[in-house]
Amino acid sequence: MNLILLKENDFTSPGRVTIRGRRFTHIQTVHRAAVGDQLTAGLINNKMGTATVTHLTPSSIEMDVTLDQDPPPALDLTLVMALPRPKMLKRILQTVTSLGVKRIYLVNTWRVEKGFWSSPVLEQESLEEHITLGLEQAKDTIMPQVFLRRLFTPFVKEELETLSRDTLKLVAHPKGGRVCPCHPGQPITLAMGPEGGFIDREVETFERLGFENVSLGERILRLETAVPVLISRLFT
Amino acid sequence: MNLILLKENDFTSPGRVTIRGRRFTHIQTVHRAAVGDQLTAGLINNKMGTATVTHLTPSSIEMDVTLDQDPPPALDLTLVMALPRPKMLKRILQTVTSLGVKRIYLVNTWRVEKGFWSSPVLEQESLEEHITLGLEQAKDTIMPQVFLRRLFTPFVKEELETLSRDTLKLVAHPKGGRVCPCHPGQPITLAMGPEGGFIDREVETFERLGFENVSLGERILRLETAVPVLISRLFT
Repeated sequence: MNLILLKENDFTSPGRVTIRGRRFTHIQTVHRAAVGDQLTAGLINNKMGTATVTHLTPSSIEMDVTLDQDPPPALDLTLVMALPRPKMLKRILQTVTSLGVKRIYLVNTWRVEKGFWSSPVLEQESLEEHITLGLEQAKDTIMPQVFLRRLFTPFVKEELETLSRDTLKLVAHPKGGRVCPCHPGQPITLAMGPEGGFIDREVETFERLGFENVSLGERILRLETAVPVLISRLFT
Repeated sequence: MNLILLKENDFTSPGRVTIRGRRFTHIQTVHRAAVGDQLTAGLINNKMGTATVTHLTPSSIEMDVTLDQDPPPALDLTLVMALPRPKMLKRILQTVTSLGVKRIYLVNTWRVEKGFWSSPVLEQESLEEHITLGLEQAKDTIMPQVFLRRLFTPFVKEELETLSRDTLKLVAHPKGGRVCPCHPGQPITLAMGPEGGFIDREVETFERLGFENVSLGERILRLETAVPVLISRLFT
């Protein structure tokens, strides 16, 4: 937790917060904060700055906060990802959030196991939990939006064209065409398949919408490795 | 398992193997292989090619193998990494192996929890298990070497200078100097700190050996995200 992510209802008066629960425990056991210490804090979807500890009880911490800095820039990327298995999804949400992704579409594809859609990880509260960990890690305050799309065809037909307009459209595919370009310097829509990849018909659907089929080279990477590798390649 | 990694003792005669256990179960339940099917296979530290299923029993599979292709190129990188917590180490070993890293030094630093060194993950058999998963994932056969160095100072004084000679020497540090360079096109030695980072004295030790202190920008990433991001940045 490199930043303490605050919510509106943490504020007891303007510029003063009281924190309990998970964040309090972390501040107490990891930061080992004492009265007078300064920590990095930020308000969800708002500015960040410093929090100065003013009071400690066995179950809460009170801090005076000054929020005067902008969060780090976001990536101009829309990530369209076949729904990964729940355990991997947790880590990937945290990873892509820490990297600065702000728009994530989790979509169904032929090779997504149907059972994944009933996972409790997809509940709003759980999605927010893993996103929060990513923001706290990377010192960011802007919550990414996660959209669940259980039907591939309507998503592609009714939404994808609009949301990818005026972006560089890429579909990552192990059997892809040319190797993924390096830092093309424009907004990007990146589609990533499930374990086992998109089926040919799905790749063709993307191609009809103007997506270019790109690979990462000879090596086949797990989704959770491929995602940071591709984002690094596209945005550094 | 995109490649079936064979050992010398899988061979029952030249060009013929019998597989049992984990790999057999995977071939049976995931690949759902039948007699006549062709799979990708490779011999540890040797060539790769195809394996044709010739016989199936309830507990074993027999295949004829032709190994005539070179494994994918390795990265010319020596990774010096503060020993991560065991659960993360498993994933990182798999990740860096899949990316083509072949030399990994796991070292002690001030902020490494001492208990990590007694983890069963560090036993040879366990290291090989996670490395194997990385090779099977990426379709590679060359086992990386993992070196355990429980004492920071002797490692740095007696080994690091020699092993990093004639390479670009980088130490990743969130409070680092310039942002990490992109694909410098030369052999690299990359040092990565533990959760919480190297302490200043350790960074200075690296700097005295000619390591340049580089950062990944404003965002602080978990080690398991920073590793693929940095490798992608340095080698693509």
